[in-house]
Amino acid sequence: MTDTVRLALDAMGGDHGPSVVVPGAALALARKPDMTFLFVGDEAKIRPLVDAEPRLAGRCEILHTDVAVRMDDKPSVALRKGRWKSSMWLALDAVKTHRSDAVVSAGNTGALMAMSRFCLRMMADVERPAIAAIWPTLRGESIVLDVGATIGADARQLVDFAVMGSAMARILFDLDRPTVALLNVGVEEIKGVEQVKEAARILREEDFPALDFRGFVEGDDLGKGTVDVVVTEGFSGNIALKTAEGTARQIAEYLRSAMGRTWLSKLGYLLARGAFDTLKEKMDPRKVNGGVFLGLDGVVIKSHGGTDAEGFASAVEVGYEMVRYDLMTKIRQGLLHDQGADAPPPSPASLAGAES
Amino acid sequence: MTDTVRLALDAMGGDHGPSVVVPGAALALARKPDMTFLFVGDEAKIRPLVDAEPRLAGRCEILHTDVAVRMDDKPSVALRKGRWKSSMWLALDAVKTHRSDAVVSAGNTGALMAMSRFCLRMMADVERPAIAAIWPTLRGESIVLDVGATIGADARQLVDFAVMGSAMARILFDLDRPTVALLNVGVEEIKGVEQVKEAARILREEDFPALDFRGFVEGDDLGKGTVDVVVTEGFSGNIALKTAEGTARQIAEYLRSAMGRTWLSKLGYLLARGAFDTLKEKMDPRKVNGGVFLGLDGVVIKSHGGTDAEGFASAVEVGYEMVRYDLMTKIRQGLLHDQGADAPPPSPASLAGAES
Repeated sequence: MTDTVRLALDAMGGDHGPSVVVPGAALALARKPDMTFLFVGDEAKIRPLVDAEPRLAGRCEILHTDVAVRMDDKPSVALRKGRWKSSMWLALDAVKTHRSDAVVSAGNTGALMAMSRFCLRMMADVERPAIAAIWPTLRGESIVLDVGATIGADARQLVDFAVMGSAMARILFDLDRPTVALLNVGVEEIKGVEQVKEAARILREEDFPALDFRGFVEGDDLGKGTVDVVVTEGFSGNIALKTAEGTARQIAEYLRSAMGRTWLSKLGYLLARGAFDTLKEKMDPRKVNGGVFLGLDGVVIKSHGGTDAEGFASAVEVGYEMVRYDLMTKIRQGLLHDQGADAPPPSPASLAGAES
Repeated sequence: MTDTVRLALDAMGGDHGPSVVVPGAALALARKPDMTFLFVGDEAKIRPLVDAEPRLAGRCEILHTDVAVRMDDKPSVALRKGRWKSSMWLALDAVKTHRSDAVVSAGNTGALMAMSRFCLRMMADVERPAIAAIWPTLRGESIVLDVGATIGADARQLVDFAVMGSAMARILFDLDRPTVALLNVGVEEIKGVEQVKEAARILREEDFPALDFRGFVEGDDLGKGTVDVVVTEGFSGNIALKTAEGTARQIAEYLRSAMGRTWLSKLGYLLARGAFDTLKEKMDPRKVNGGVFLGLDGVVIKSHGGTDAEGFASAVEVGYEMVRYDLMTKIRQGLLHDQGADAPPPSPASLAGAES
C-alpha cells in the first residue's frame, strides 16, 4: 500500500453501471480525500461522467474494456465470457498485480465471488471465503458472516470466519477486541450442529487475543446487536440476511398502508414526519452498503447491485477503511496465532477443494 | 374422534400456568362451542379458575398431578423427572390412550418435543418430526417448517415436511392444493444443498395431488407470502423464525424511540393512533400463536410460553381445527401417495434413529 488508497472500481457492475459508480466515487472522495480510483469499463461511457465531476480531476484513471459481466450471468458463464477481459476481472487483476489496493464492484455476487477466487486465489491457510455483511442493530452495527459465499463449514472454517470477521470489526468499529458469537438454535440438547459446538470449543480453549468469544447467539440476537461479530455458515447466514430484509420491508408496507387509511392517520403522519424520516434513515440500506469478501488474497467489496451513488459511496468508503487500517495484515496475524496453537494444518485435499 | 373435539391441556405449562390456560380455554370455547377440555395439573390451582368461568361448567375435567416440567428444564431432565407423571406427559398420554384428540401445551419446546416423541411415537413412515409455525405475511399467513424440531434433513425427510405442511395448510387456510416451496439461497451454482435440490426433484417428478410445488424461495419470500408452505430443515428454519421476530422487535423499538422524540411527533402519534393500533394488531404474536408438531402419532400444539389468555385461546383453536378437519388422515393420505410412487421404503436404521 502506498500512502494513498488506490481503489479499482468495476464501473460496469450493478443495475446502473457508471452512472452510479462515477458519482459514487466522487461522493466518497469528498469525505476521504486520500484516495485514487481506477475505473474499469467502457471509456466512452465513463469519460463524460468523470469530466462532470471536478473533484475527480487528477484522482483517477480509466482502463477501457468492452466486456461486462451481466447481473443475471451465472458464475460459470461469467467466468467463461468475462475472464481476462471483463471490467470485473480487470478490476480484480489490478489488485492481484498491485496496481490497486482493493476492488469495489456492484456486479452480481456469484460471478464476483467466482472471479475473485479464480483471479486473487485464497489467502494462505484459509480454506473457504466468506461474505461479511454489516448488519444494523439496536446497538449500532454488527458484522455477520458468512451470508452466502459457500454452503456449510466445518469447525475450523467457522473459527477462521470468527478471526476474519473480528479483523473487520476491529477496523470498522475501532475496537481492540470485538465480541464474537456463533449463531445457533435454542434447544441445548439438539443434535447435529457438531461443527458449531466444536468451533465453540476451539474458540473457548485457544486463546485468541484479538477477539472476545461469547458463545452462542440465536436469530433474534442479530437485531439486538448482542455481539459485534456473528459467525455462521453461508446457507443459514444468507437465509437470516434475506429474512431480516424481507421482514423490514413487510413492516414498512404494513405501516404505509395503515398510515394512509384515514385522514386522521394521514394528518398524524404529516406531523410525525420527522420521526418517520429518522426511522427511514435508520433502515436505509444505503448507509450500510458494502459486503466484504473475506479469505481471499486481496480486498474485495461487494456493493448492492441496485444501489444509488450514495450507497456506492458507502461501499467505496468500506473499501477505503479496509485498506487504510490493513485488513489483510490483521487477518494474517489472527490466523498466524491460530496456526501457532495446536490446530492441525489444513490438508492438501481441503485446500484443493477450496480452489475448485 | 367423537363429534366433540376433546383437547388435553397442559395446565402447568408456560410462564403463567393455569392462570392463562384456564381463561384461554374459556375464550376459545366461546368461539368453538363443540369442545371439551381435560385440564392436567395441580387441581388446587385449576379448580378455582374453572369455577370462575361459567362457560366451562360441564365442558371440562381435571386430571390432578403435582409434577410439572419447568420452562428451563433440559429435555433429558424433563424426561427423567416428568415421564409418567408430569402434567405435560399425562396430557400427551390422554391422546395416546384416545381419551383426548389433541394436546395443547405452553411448556418448554424441547421438553414437549422429547416427551411427544417418547409418549406418542412417530407416525408410521415418517422419520423425523417437524415444528410448523404460522407465519404472518403480506398476503395473510403461511406455514413454515421445520422451525427447530431437529437439525438437518435429507431429501425424503424434506418431502415428508412438504406433505405434512400442506395437510396443515389445507385445513388452516381452507385450500385444496396449497402452494409449496423449498427455502434455498440465491446463487444457483452454489454447492452443498444437495438434499434441497434432490427434494425439489422428487416434488417435481412425483405427482402429489394435495400440493402445488413451486420450486425454491429465499428468505425474503417468507414475509411476502410467496407460497402457502415453506419447507426447510430445523436449523435454518429456527434461525429464520428468530431473525424475523428479532427484526420486528428492532423496528418497533426504532419506531417507539422516533415517535417519542419531539412534541410534534408525539402529537402525530396520537392522531395516527388508530393506524398504529392496526399495525400492532398485524404484528400481534398472539393472533398467530400455535406451532404444530408434525410427524408424531397424535396432534400436539405448542403455544408460546409467555402468551396470555387470548394467545393461548389461539393455540387451542389451532388444535381444534387440526382435529375437526382431520390433520392426521390428511397427512397419512399424502404419505401413502408418496409411498405409492417409486420412493424407497425408509430403512430400519433411519427409523431407529428417529426414535433415539
